[in-house]
Amino acid sequence: MSTPVTVIGLGPMGQAMVHTLLREGHQVTVWNRTAGRAADVAAAGATVAATPAAAVAASKLVILSLTDYQAMYDILGSATEALAGRTLVNLSSDSPDVTREGAAWAEQHGARFLTGGVMTPAPMVGTEAAYVYYSGPAEVFEADRETLAKLGAPRYLGEDLGLAQLMYLAHLDVFLTSLASLMHATALLESGGVTASAAFPELMLTVTGIGEMLAVGEGENPGAQIDAGEHPGDLSTAAMMGATADHIVAASKAVGVDTGLPAAVQAYYAWVRDNGYGNDNWTRIIDAMRPQGR
Amino acid sequence: MSTPVTVIGLGPMGQAMVHTLLREGHQVTVWNRTAGRAADVAAAGATVAATPAAAVAASKLVILSLTDYQAMYDILGSATEALAGRTLVNLSSDSPDVTREGAAWAEQHGARFLTGGVMTPAPMVGTEAAYVYYSGPAEVFEADRETLAKLGAPRYLGEDLGLAQLMYLAHLDVFLTSLASLMHATALLESGGVTASAAFPELMLTVTGIGEMLAVGEGENPGAQIDAGEHPGDLSTAAMMGATADHIVAASKAVGVDTGLPAAVQAYYAWVRDNGYGNDNWTRIIDAMRPQGR
Repeated sequence: MSTPVTVIGLGPMGQAMVHTLLREGHQVTVWNRTAGRAADVAAAGATVAATPAAAVAASKLVILSLTDYQAMYDILGSATEALAGRTLVNLSSDSPDVTREGAAWAEQHGARFLTGGVMTPAPMVGTEAAYVYYSGPAEVFEADRETLAKLGAPRYLGEDLGLAQLMYLAHLDVFLTSLASLMHATALLESGGVTASAAFPELMLTVTGIGEMLAVGEGENPGAQIDAGEHPGDLSTAAMMGATADHIVAASKAVGVDTGLPAAVQAYYAWVRDNGYGNDNWTRIIDAMRPQGR
Repeated sequence: MSTPVTVIGLGPMGQAMVHTLLREGHQVTVWNRTAGRAADVAAAGATVAATPAAAVAASKLVILSLTDYQAMYDILGSATEALAGRTLVNLSSDSPDVTREGAAWAEQHGARFLTGGVMTPAPMVGTEAAYVYYSGPAEVFEADRETLAKLGAPRYLGEDLGLAQLMYLAHLDVFLTSLASLMHATALLESGGVTASAAFPELMLTVTGIGEMLAVGEGENPGAQIDAGEHPGDLSTAAMMGATADHIVAASKAVGVDTGLPAAVQAYYAWVRDNGYGNDNWTRIIDAMRPQGR
């Protein structure tokens, strides 16, 4: 028989997980602060618990899909006696330190704990494109791996309870920053009379071309050179890229578009230039970000 | 017979253009501040001019591939009498205002002028993947379109001499910012003991997945809604994305990784939240960047 699962938090992600688990034949109990949000999943067969304590009591495996870790304390703070013997899998986003504290809190109340990050938008949960990072005790992960795999391919990163969040945040760092750059570039083009509809498909050419661009002349994984502290500047030197960063800031300023984002990029190239690394590859900017670089 | 072409500036991009034009049967004259850089293209059949004036005199079509527009003044300032009747195509990067001034300067000396931006790394010049934005007088562009097409597919944007640069800078805005985010995320993962070699291929999944991610639930061109001032927040609200931006900044700070880049992203989401747009789609951040938004 399939493992019963409790899902707490019914945002788009939580609802997608409930529907996926129901489709896979699991008995699913749910709880949400705003009860109305449970209507859809209840109609699909989920049991709506009256209280967080009842929701936790209903299943040995409890998945949390909340805004942040504070929401876990807010919701389960009144249900701590129900936690003993449960496995909490918190898929909410927060900083690695906060997830480590959350794990300690849960373990203090007798629960096992995994932290995770879902690397896919809600509509893709349960599809082949979905993958989810987990970290925490290996035996806790292995015990529920089969059930968790229903949500997306599980990628276990190790015992460190902060690691799944760190990987999640690193991905989102790239995602949010790239998206912001798309909006910034769109605002810049608007100043020249180019509509967002016209700008967006053009700019997406650059996003989708980054993989190919990075492979040119530098091998397919720049990471190896970065690990070795090597930044050979053959094609795209930090000085050239930095000059372009200067032009982007100047162009933004000239038309009144906010310079916060391009100025942050420019500052890394300025650091590289000021430290005599201008002829290195652009990857040298990582030293302007690393703790030991400053 | 093929149009004779002069190429001034023999960085990797200039050299790639010369080799491409020679292969296509053009007579090519070159000049470079550091004469040694001309050795390769001379061996391939290019004529090395003794002075900038001689280089300009050699061809009616003169392509400039320099660090910026100041370099054009530095090099051609002593050759202004040779400019009359020439077409200068400046493919150097600079801000739109500066390119408009450069065009005025060239026209004052009797030259026709186009500005352009090469949207490809040097090794891809002349391949099917290469494309080049141009702007300036349509008849000037049409007169040399056939020759310019040898370098990459020409995409003519209009008469405004700043437009090609603006489009180039908008692309580079996305490119440099996305690359910087890859390095920032790599530095973040290093704090958890993940090597750059291990981090990079993981993070590239997000870059290459952005196209698909954006298409989910929002149609394939978010630009149309942005033009209409519509930002329906169904899946990825600005509040949710902003909470994640907060976590990224906190996580960076906790491990001593520079916060400049994620803080710039965070500031846009803070603006959206503070202005009551938290339930809108993340694309609302464009209003925090637009001149009229602040």
